[in-house]
Amino acid sequence: MSPLGISGLAHLFGILAFILLLVWLLHYREGIDYDSDNGFRVFNAHPLLMYSCFIFLAGEAMMVFQTIPSERKVKKFVHMTLHLIAIVLGIVGLNAVFKFHDMQNIPNVYSLHSWIGIGTFCLFALQWLFGFVVFMLQGASATTRAKVLPWHKVGGRALLFMAVCAAETGLMEKSSFLTNLKLLHERESNLINFTGLAILLFGVFVNFSVGFS
Amino acid sequence: MSPLGISGLAHLFGILAFILLLVWLLHYREGIDYDSDNGFRVFNAHPLLMYSCFIFLAGEAMMVFQTIPSERKVKKFVHMTLHLIAIVLGIVGLNAVFKFHDMQNIPNVYSLHSWIGIGTFCLFALQWLFGFVVFMLQGASATTRAKVLPWHKVGGRALLFMAVCAAETGLMEKSSFLTNLKLLHERESNLINFTGLAILLFGVFVNFSVGFS
Repeated sequence: MSPLGISGLAHLFGILAFILLLVWLLHYREGIDYDSDNGFRVFNAHPLLMYSCFIFLAGEAMMVFQTIPSERKVKKFVHMTLHLIAIVLGIVGLNAVFKFHDMQNIPNVYSLHSWIGIGTFCLFALQWLFGFVVFMLQGASATTRAKVLPWHKVGGRALLFMAVCAAETGLMEKSSFLTNLKLLHERESNLINFTGLAILLFGVFVNFSVGFS
Repeated sequence: MSPLGISGLAHLFGILAFILLLVWLLHYREGIDYDSDNGFRVFNAHPLLMYSCFIFLAGEAMMVFQTIPSERKVKKFVHMTLHLIAIVLGIVGLNAVFKFHDMQNIPNVYSLHSWIGIGTFCLFALQWLFGFVVFMLQGASATTRAKVLPWHKVGGRALLFMAVCAAETGLMEKSSFLTNLKLLHERESNLINFTGLAILLFGVFVNFSVGFS
């Protein structure tokens, strides 16, 4: 199977995960509203934005070099822009969870999910800044750029994998809390699991799509 | 930094995660005993064996081509054998959790952690079988082997990612349950988080160590 064929599978699982996540948040979890007085509706902006930006958009940005049939310059620009959108909307997504914690008087950044998530966000922002200076502004010589590129690629794959880990631990944390509070609907658990698997498979197929270059 | 230097960092975080996991299970979680009447001691064989085999041994097996200074034949044999030990001990580790569930009358394979874990185990076993037939028994022509090798490598990296995801969701599930049952000791939460981070960093550095070849 060609890298383009594999990226097709990645798109498929990426969109599937997005739909499953929407069904979960809208049908079982009271909907999404960043400005609501209902803390849970504010919270729901967090999983939606973090998945859409830090996994889906970032994964699509990684595959741009395989999927967009245009000049390398254009591909680089789209790659950089998608990652920038991911960072900006990711900040809103992170803020949603801090807002929810403030509303409910819950401490911040205590769980494994939050440690992985915050760590990944910081490294992601550093990787973007590094890539922007070195590859877009060409702040390094051609030789250095050629030397640094494989690190940028391997680092990017590791970051996507860390972001997927953050998502899976987030889903796990939420479903454990709901189970313990006896708030989990009968079929909701399977929906959460299928969402988690679709996110994981998106990560795996992005890895296959870009892993050979 | 050379791939050998990076694999040094991987060893470091791999051993650190092993020590942190042992401290957690022995000091806070009643110890490890597969044949105990205390279900929690039986259960504790699960995280220990799954991490030691499916992440640490498997990661070390992946890095063998960088870390062992010997003939390619010897490296291949060590690579295959370490993965085989991982599978055999992994079955014992999986059994520990089924035994614990039987003792406590808990249903099997309902959480996202279990779905990711079981899925990864099955694909891991298939990847081993495939590698054994194609590369050890040389059940394919040299041309086919050369074509298939990059898929084997990218697939192996994806499987290590999935195994790390399984570990992180497992730690998250356990710490959520302990929190909700008010059984989590004051400093235990941070210990679990540091263990999770060490496991994640092991995965990331193995990825860097083997990601350039």
